[in-house]
Amino acid sequence: MAQVNDLIRTRMASKHAPRIPEVTAHLVEAGGKRLRPMLTLAAAKLCGYDGPYHIHLAATVEFIHTATLLHDDVVDESNQRRGRPTANLLWDNKSSVLVGDYLFSRSFQLMVETGSLTVLDILANASATIAEGEVLQLTAAQDLATSEAVYLQVVRGKTAALFSAACEVGGVIAGADETVTKALYAYGDALGISFQIVDDLLDFAGTEAIGKNIGDDFRERKLTLPLIKAIAKADDEERAFWVRTIEKGKQQEGDLEFALELLHKHGALDDTRDVALEWAEKAKAALEALPDDPVRDMLRDIADYVVARVN
Amino acid sequence: MAQVNDLIRTRMASKHAPRIPEVTAHLVEAGGKRLRPMLTLAAAKLCGYDGPYHIHLAATVEFIHTATLLHDDVVDESNQRRGRPTANLLWDNKSSVLVGDYLFSRSFQLMVETGSLTVLDILANASATIAEGEVLQLTAAQDLATSEAVYLQVVRGKTAALFSAACEVGGVIAGADETVTKALYAYGDALGISFQIVDDLLDFAGTEAIGKNIGDDFRERKLTLPLIKAIAKADDEERAFWVRTIEKGKQQEGDLEFALELLHKHGALDDTRDVALEWAEKAKAALEALPDDPVRDMLRDIADYVVARVN
Repeated sequence: MAQVNDLIRTRMASKHAPRIPEVTAHLVEAGGKRLRPMLTLAAAKLCGYDGPYHIHLAATVEFIHTATLLHDDVVDESNQRRGRPTANLLWDNKSSVLVGDYLFSRSFQLMVETGSLTVLDILANASATIAEGEVLQLTAAQDLATSEAVYLQVVRGKTAALFSAACEVGGVIAGADETVTKALYAYGDALGISFQIVDDLLDFAGTEAIGKNIGDDFRERKLTLPLIKAIAKADDEERAFWVRTIEKGKQQEGDLEFALELLHKHGALDDTRDVALEWAEKAKAALEALPDDPVRDMLRDIADYVVARVN
Repeated sequence: MAQVNDLIRTRMASKHAPRIPEVTAHLVEAGGKRLRPMLTLAAAKLCGYDGPYHIHLAATVEFIHTATLLHDDVVDESNQRRGRPTANLLWDNKSSVLVGDYLFSRSFQLMVETGSLTVLDILANASATIAEGEVLQLTAAQDLATSEAVYLQVVRGKTAALFSAACEVGGVIAGADETVTKALYAYGDALGISFQIVDDLLDFAGTEAIGKNIGDDFRERKLTLPLIKAIAKADDEERAFWVRTIEKGKQQEGDLEFALELLHKHGALDDTRDVALEWAEKAKAALEALPDDPVRDMLRDIADYVVARVN
């Protein structure tokens, strides 16, 4: 992991545009969990890889993740719902868009260096799925008719696609056979879905200790699983509440508290947690097809860790 | 070219997110000149290519160009200097960022399909150079100390990098030898620089018939070559004018007219045109290393066409 961090630091530099490492540094060096690159390293190790390119791939995956975060910021900040001054917002927009693009292209250079067309194919497809998921989320937002199936599709795109690709390329670069790479993909897919559902649940059920701002998704009118489940069970009066707050966005003092009441009343938070746990179990089940190894145990622990935040 | 357009139309589709083709269509089908994909096709033909992948590469190059335009829109619209309503601006921002990302990833898929690691390497490097050039432009903006050398670096990044890559990959996919691919690169590089200088000149010297809005760059305080040349010859009083209008952005009625007067007074427009013509000549000179062929004549004509707008 130290080698991955070194490579990230080297490759985020720019001879000509010093703004790039400035903007990137506070994201990359903010002490994130580095969960995605760790998955790549683990998958490569599990498959007995002894070449140098798992480091490149781990850095690639982290760069794609960071670029996505930068662009997400633009999409979310555009809402201007967090009361930040507009000038600052706009400055951030420009830098975030362009530095995000720079990181995408740097990730692209890193993966080309591995010389594996299969790896390139997997990551190209993952990138397209991520972008498609983000656009789908944009168009599904504020639409009360959003189903659990559409939600799952969004989550598979915006989160799980990079988790599954991170795992799969670790196996592919090691020359693992298809049973193994498919199992790694399935593990990453289920883990990513579980991870995102937990994240969406914590937006309502978290505590400030976790560093989450309760109710951000509600204020941004994002239809995540807890809301979808509560809306499905809404009576006429409750439905009117959701239409006003989510569809029309006319929120007022006390609305978040009432939304939380409805979520509790319909068991939407418990049901959402159950779904997250199911996906964590699926992730662990996918590991069965992999060789028995301490790294496999670690991957199992990661699945437990992801849901531990709500368990 | 019809095959390229077909491929573009097929690949900009999205099963899950219909917003993507909506946003893309008005850009891709707005009847642009398709100059960049034409360069790829011409280079491949000149080098005797008879496979199918020049079509993929031409579509790749147009997708990268379109994605860049979408993100440029965000960066420019963030200025809010065109008086458009904010809600619309924000909606466009989100869609432009995410659909731009989608097109980048689609272009990436297309180039992986060619199976050529050399092509991938060239386009990965071009992407990084483009993004770096855009960030450099952002940090150089409003800085009166911007030199012609920095301007050239920005132009090489944001415009010429894609022109040169478009030409080079056409030769590479055809298996041309290094003398030829280097000449194609040099041609595209010089052509792209000439193209951008002409564009920047037309922002001051154009007529409405060309469809340009005179003075946009001045209003957006972009330090392009005409301004850099005029500022280099400014006396104290003129310098105060540039500090006020460009550095501090305190523009008022009549400023554009006075700026144009200064540009004429110092011959900045004529000097800029001379530089554009020099680069067009360099582009044509690069063609000498290529086989004598009707396609080579066409590439020569393109260089003349690019500067014809200001000649």
